[in-house]
Amino acid sequence: MQRPLGREREIPPLVEAVVKTYDEVSKINHLGLSPLPSREQIIEIITGLKEIVYPGYFGRQNFTRDNITFHIGDRMLSVFRALGQQIYRSFLHECQLASPDCDHCAKAAEQVALDFLGHIPKIRRLLAKDVQATYDGDPAAKSLDEIIFSYPGLEAITVYRFAHELHIMTVPLLPRIMTEYAHSITGVDIHPGATIGESFFIDHGTGVVVGETTQIGNNVKIYQGVTLGAHSFPKDEKGQLVRGRKRHPTIEDDVTIYSGATILGAEAVIGKGSVIGGNVWLTGPVPPGSVVTIESPGLVYRDKSRRPDKQAGG
Amino acid sequence: MQRPLGREREIPPLVEAVVKTYDEVSKINHLGLSPLPSREQIIEIITGLKEIVYPGYFGRQNFTRDNITFHIGDRMLSVFRALGQQIYRSFLHECQLASPDCDHCAKAAEQVALDFLGHIPKIRRLLAKDVQATYDGDPAAKSLDEIIFSYPGLEAITVYRFAHELHIMTVPLLPRIMTEYAHSITGVDIHPGATIGESFFIDHGTGVVVGETTQIGNNVKIYQGVTLGAHSFPKDEKGQLVRGRKRHPTIEDDVTIYSGATILGAEAVIGKGSVIGGNVWLTGPVPPGSVVTIESPGLVYRDKSRRPDKQAGG
Amino acid sequence: MQRPLGREREIPPLVEAVVKTYDEVSKINHLGLSPLPSREQIIEIITGLKEIVYPGYFGRQNFTRDNITFHIGDRMLSVFRALGQQIYRSFLHECQLASPDCDHCAKAAEQVALDFLGHIPKIRRLLAKDVQATYDGDPAAKSLDEIIFSYPGLEAITVYRFAHELHIMTVPLLPRIMTEYAHSITGVDIHPGATIGESFFIDHGTGVVVGETTQIGNNVKIYQGVTLGAHSFPKDEKGQLVRGRKRHPTIEDDVTIYSGATILGAEAVIGKGSVIGGNVWLTGPVPPGSVVTIESPGLVYRDKSRRPDKQAGG
Repeated sequence: MQRPLGREREIPPLVEAVVKTYDEVSKINHLGLSPLPSREQIIEIITGLKEIVYPGYFGRQNFTRDNITFHIGDRMLSVFRALGQQIYRSFLHECQLASPDCDHCAKAAEQVALDFLGHIPKIRRLLAKDVQATYDGDPAAKSLDEIIFSYPGLEAITVYRFAHELHIMTVPLLPRIMTEYAHSITGVDIHPGATIGESFFIDHGTGVVVGETTQIGNNVKIYQGVTLGAHSFPKDEKGQLVRGRKRHPTIEDDVTIYSGATILGAEAVIGKGSVIGGNVWLTGPVPPGSVVTIESPGLVYRDKSRRPDKQAGG
Repeated sequence: MQRPLGREREIPPLVEAVVKTYDEVSKINHLGLSPLPSREQIIEIITGLKEIVYPGYFGRQNFTRDNITFHIGDRMLSVFRALGQQIYRSFLHECQLASPDCDHCAKAAEQVALDFLGHIPKIRRLLAKDVQATYDGDPAAKSLDEIIFSYPGLEAITVYRFAHELHIMTVPLLPRIMTEYAHSITGVDIHPGATIGESFFIDHGTGVVVGETTQIGNNVKIYQGVTLGAHSFPKDEKGQLVRGRKRHPTIEDDVTIYSGATILGAEAVIGKGSVIGGNVWLTGPVPPGSVVTIESPGLVYRDKSRRPDKQAGG
Repeated sequence: MQRPLGREREIPPLVEAVVKTYDEVSKINHLGLSPLPSREQIIEIITGLKEIVYPGYFGRQNFTRDNITFHIGDRMLSVFRALGQQIYRSFLHECQLASPDCDHCAKAAEQVALDFLGHIPKIRRLLAKDVQATYDGDPAAKSLDEIIFSYPGLEAITVYRFAHELHIMTVPLLPRIMTEYAHSITGVDIHPGATIGESFFIDHGTGVVVGETTQIGNNVKIYQGVTLGAHSFPKDEKGQLVRGRKRHPTIEDDVTIYSGATILGAEAVIGKGSVIGGNVWLTGPVPPGSVVTIESPGLVYRDKSRRPDKQAGG
């Protein structure tokens, strides 16, 4: 279409019409205020953190124990700067001063970024146990390397462990942007507010939902399509949703939850060592050491030649 | 592997063998014809449109109400050019003249691109209601900003609202490439042909399917894993699928559909204000104001120590 | 935050603490060893292969039957080099010599890369049948072009067909990185070890899982959320999972499996021509020509005005 674009002169009034809606429908624009966090920058921070916790797998390779310090030092410095900046913007977003600059927010952001870097050794120890739990739980896994390279469950857990640290240091916005990025590339939706113990294993992963106030113990395994969700949404006297209270399940140590199971509400406390079968729907407590399965719904078998096929799913 | 690549001389006959299949299996190549739309360009158009409808969140920041017109004007001009080009290629794809150039298609594409830009104010008003509906429906949402930045349901709805405008202006190919891009990054599969009212909220989103001829009213909420699909695929006298007829559900105003529910077929009209419970499977109409749940399949509880665990899902 | 970054001087001890964990928790780092495959490179190889099998759709356009050989020849040469390199690194990963160089691995990698290129004509013939099966199975598909551009099911099958060839030539690591990349962008998780016949169609796709030892015949259709998984995970006398044995279903020719069905275990042999209804859960064999549906769990209808809504799913 190599044509003179004569009709470009019709654009300006269309621009005016759009810009007018920035006054009229102003709650979905953000103008003249302090800058918001940048999703692109946050994705780069995650990339940098993955190089730090899994050195040799992502980004540059060919490091030795002798020279790795230079590379990781450089990486940690970049992450510190970018993370400090994004935490600052996140704090500013909730700052009561509502000024474009806030020295208090800047200092707090720097402190949180440093504290976060100080937690990386602890996070690495946790991730090593998650990788091992994945290997121990999946007969299709051929090596730890394969898991680190390619398992979406581990990717989602890795990003969750970063985001959760920032969440408990009360950083707004940023942790959720991190976990929703992971959700986007893995299909696994873990809220940064969830509490998750050691040696967590998610297989396949697509469709997993772990809600904000979920508590998960050690050595828990969950499969694709499992929801740990809320059961009811109480409203206050103004009809507004009540936010912040515990409304998701508690999963004790050594529990396995098979694919498609749905466990809803704060009363659903799944006792230590229990096994929840595929497609089970639970809203109450389960005693430790239980196996819960659904009574298989009767299956109807018939000969295809007798009636035309009608059922579909797409 | 710094080796002389002696075996590269064995490549040419392999190339010949592949190129020969371009004659033999020609329906999956596109040679010597007019150019097809470019998926990369279409993704850039979506990026530009998101900057226009949510200014200050994506792309450049630090705009004020005074200078935003320059930036948005520039953005709209770029989108106009790229969109015009991609619409032109899409029209050409179905053009009966089958020539590499078609002045009629070029003019029509320019007109559709201008009309589309003229619809952006309307789209922004709709999106503002979708954002608000998300906030009102999800106690985990801390602010509208968090939703705009990170909610996959809103991302899918945003792209759907762009694509649907192009779909109703009969642009082929392009709208579906847009919504399948959104499907890829959100797990939410909304066909651009679906009709969706105001204040639509999708939570978590992974696994949601909204089929081509679905009609959805205002204030509808759906959760992860909900399918609004087809129930049977009638064929014509030649055994070919009949395309285009209504074959998906109608969801009236104020309906909520919980996770994993499956609603299939044009006869499934879900009446105003109804609530469809998790995992419900429906193929017929539901009167207004109904609550439909499944009879919980009996759960079998037993003590784990009595039989080895056999059930799995991965 | 334009502040003097005085606190950067606090970074070095934090770096030391992290680097110390590379000794302590060494199983998730890879230092001083031969290079691992690069996920970025593998994604580029997939991009190149898609240009070769679907010329004119992805990457550069405007080729004719006369000049396409130059472009495809150039592409195949690049793929040969990159693939040879990545296969080499994958072989080296399992090489018993554990040296940073292995001439035997290099030669084997070159051979496998050449053999793989020689299989592309066969792969194109298979993909053409997959595209046609998608068109024949989905009334929403308007053209083959739309399918090649935008159907996630076809994307996942395309990458699987590449990865499976490498898998049967015993390349470690690389095939799984390929299919998990496809999983990430499509929500469809097909293990490269699965065996899949001609004319395979996956609709919508999100949440589909096809396990390592699954066998699928010709003309099989599956919908979103279908799991073809394992049923039990036997351990050896040391308590380690037994890896490699058949533990997934067999799906014979002409079978259709609707959304959300779960079929688990090697004993689940679904006979030719059968139809498995939505949400069915199966762990045993089904005779040829069967239609298997669940006894619809009774639905409970009530008037919403009588009791407050409590059920939720998010």
